[in-house]
Amino acid sequence: MALIVQKYGGSSVRSTERIKRVAERVVATRGEGHDVVVVLSAMGDTTDRLLELARQVSDLPSPRELDMLLTSGERMANALAAMAIHSLGADACSLSGPQAGVITTSAYGKARIVDVTPRRVRQALDRGAIVLVAGFQGLSPETEDITTLGRGGSDTTAIALAAALKADVCEICTDVDGVYTADPRIVPEARRLEHITFESMEEMAASGAKVLALRSVEYARRCGVTVLVRSSCHTGPGTTVSGSADDDRGEHGDHGAITGVAHDVSCAKVAVTGVPDRPGTVARVFRAVADAGCEVDTAVQNVPGPAGGVRDITFLLPGDGAPAAVAALREIRAGTGFAEVHQDDDVAKVSVIGGGMRARPGATATFCEALAEAGVNIEIMSTSEIRISAVCRTARLHDAIRALHRAFGLDRTPGTTPDKTLDHTEAVPQT
Amino acid sequence: MALIVQKYGGSSVRSTERIKRVAERVVATRGEGHDVVVVLSAMGDTTDRLLELARQVSDLPSPRELDMLLTSGERMANALAAMAIHSLGADACSLSGPQAGVITTSAYGKARIVDVTPRRVRQALDRGAIVLVAGFQGLSPETEDITTLGRGGSDTTAIALAAALKADVCEICTDVDGVYTADPRIVPEARRLEHITFESMEEMAASGAKVLALRSVEYARRCGVTVLVRSSCHTGPGTTVSGSADDDRGEHGDHGAITGVAHDVSCAKVAVTGVPDRPGTVARVFRAVADAGCEVDTAVQNVPGPAGGVRDITFLLPGDGAPAAVAALREIRAGTGFAEVHQDDDVAKVSVIGGGMRARPGATATFCEALAEAGVNIEIMSTSEIRISAVCRTARLHDAIRALHRAFGLDRTPGTTPDKTLDHTEAVPQT
Repeated sequence: MALIVQKYGGSSVRSTERIKRVAERVVATRGEGHDVVVVLSAMGDTTDRLLELARQVSDLPSPRELDMLLTSGERMANALAAMAIHSLGADACSLSGPQAGVITTSAYGKARIVDVTPRRVRQALDRGAIVLVAGFQGLSPETEDITTLGRGGSDTTAIALAAALKADVCEICTDVDGVYTADPRIVPEARRLEHITFESMEEMAASGAKVLALRSVEYARRCGVTVLVRSSCHTGPGTTVSGSADDDRGEHGDHGAITGVAHDVSCAKVAVTGVPDRPGTVARVFRAVADAGCEVDTAVQNVPGPAGGVRDITFLLPGDGAPAAVAALREIRAGTGFAEVHQDDDVAKVSVIGGGMRARPGATATFCEALAEAGVNIEIMSTSEIRISAVCRTARLHDAIRALHRAFGLDRTPGTTPDKTLDHTEAVPQT
Repeated sequence: MALIVQKYGGSSVRSTERIKRVAERVVATRGEGHDVVVVLSAMGDTTDRLLELARQVSDLPSPRELDMLLTSGERMANALAAMAIHSLGADACSLSGPQAGVITTSAYGKARIVDVTPRRVRQALDRGAIVLVAGFQGLSPETEDITTLGRGGSDTTAIALAAALKADVCEICTDVDGVYTADPRIVPEARRLEHITFESMEEMAASGAKVLALRSVEYARRCGVTVLVRSSCHTGPGTTVSGSADDDRGEHGDHGAITGVAHDVSCAKVAVTGVPDRPGTVARVFRAVADAGCEVDTAVQNVPGPAGGVRDITFLLPGDGAPAAVAALREIRAGTGFAEVHQDDDVAKVSVIGGGMRARPGATATFCEALAEAGVNIEIMSTSEIRISAVCRTARLHDAIRALHRAFGLDRTPGTTPDKTLDHTEAVPQT
């Protein structure tokens, strides 16, 4: 008998019909003899509808009150799922984040979990109940207020609970049936990965893969929680996220362990031109961006020519933060003496990720050649130990993804189905 | 500077537009220099929509989970109102029932408030904030769960908070601008009362007047909280509920203090016929009704004639509880030996209420004469010290109300407006 934490996202509970299906699935898991803790998100577009109500009463809603408002969404989904489980004859008990002992910082809207004291979860499990915990929320002991965890919060709730309860596995049940080598809607040849390391999953998430939020993967790695990404509708094997980069499996023989191709269209390229070549000016530019709450992704600067003491700085920002950053930059323009700020939203980032990149000196060359052959112009490029990224025009993104997927040997063998290729019984040599 | 608790019902906050209006009103009260605590119900039909969702996932939702689900409604309204108050430049803080220290029994769906420990409310008031408290909910220390208070719960929340905070007044802001001598939609001559005693208000509420729930009036009387029933839209003087029956004002000179006419259409008449005239059988009938969770209102039994040892028992039940009671009675029919059970939903109850009834020996005669003249047949009749009630056909109810309102001298003087008649400056002699 195992202890399993299962997390279901908003689209898995978007209607009462879907909630009933989740209930059936949860009861089936319990029927196999396992203890089950379920973490639910709010139903479908509930959060968006609540945000719209908030917008109607306030231009700038208080973060504390916004958290009070939004956390109702998960509580409702949770209580409804408990009722649906009761209807199937099983015992269930829904708990809010604070009731489940999810302790967070007091940063409303983007709180971080600092501890989980799951006394009530354990009590309910001990009496044989399936325990449902509202995702995305916790309690700040400092303010005694309810908080929300920000993006990917329900995944993090599930992983933190799994860690605190020493669960055997944390299943993230979602719209897709696992982590793919690329978005299958763009690359039909993309394959589901049977396994991915925390390190590669973090790079995939940081590079725009939507299946797991970066923060939740970091939490899982730190606490050593084995995560299984699987479909909320089907019972396929999914993708296991666990282990360190050294475990990366060389699924592609000579090609080494290349995990996949990730992409991100929610970014903006900002260029600051004519920056005087004086000590401190570049720092002032990035300080202004940071103070606007914006994380700089990839930055490049050209070297001033022999003619003049000015340079251009170009960097990538998250699209939703760019306007604030650009406004902040315009404010310091006179003081800093640079010429202009441009924002370009028509850009996308494509990345190839994999622990095997280390042992593959020609990877960057392969990357550039593939894009060149596909006629994709690289505007900015950056690399980490296990990732190569390029910024290109949004219109060229799909071609870039497909070219890289092919060039790095990720296309599945023609004539095989994804599940066959990655069958559990198939021996995969370790790198 | 006073401490004022204001309660707004569901229709007062049924849209974000209405929430903004409530916010303006609350901020205006604060602007007069008062400390303000606001208790809100859920927005409009939120509770009904949540109940419908619950019905979709379960035929018989768990009361615990239902409370978890429904209490989200008040939290949402509360958080939105806090945001709306912020937009007007005032400080506000929304608290759930448990956060506000509303301690209840653990009877989910119909919990009773046992204590209020408003530490956080006081803290927020002390720093100058308007405090919003989610009505209708509390925390059961026994189960550590959130509970709902049942019918009229938000009124009770407001009154209990007013008592715990030693507030100067508890304003119940509602759709109507006060307590009337009868429903003005039925009796155009009905007048708003300037003042009503707790005792008369309790009888009005118990007799079907919707403006305040019985339980909340009992709470107010027990704790000595002065209640002001007033419109949530207009700024009229409303109706003050306070004081004992001895304070009842003889607003109508020689007629003594007759408060008003209340009516109740949500009742059912149940007749048990041919009950054997043996000790204990009548008790078994009423035990079965009580065990079905039904409160018997008015009961009559005929005296067995000389011919036979059977009698008929007829009583009034709340309409929504009658089917369960009738089913329970049918189950004990064979064992008890009675002949039949009939349920009749086509009945209504009309009551005349007032502390002055004591000093008015002819009241019952006046009551019966008025109904006889109006051609209304009395099916069951009952009296208390300050009330006379009759059960009649639903179709005859409006005529009965109008006849009693006239006969007991409650019609307003022709040519005067209600507010004129009851103007604050008009001296009203005490009885």
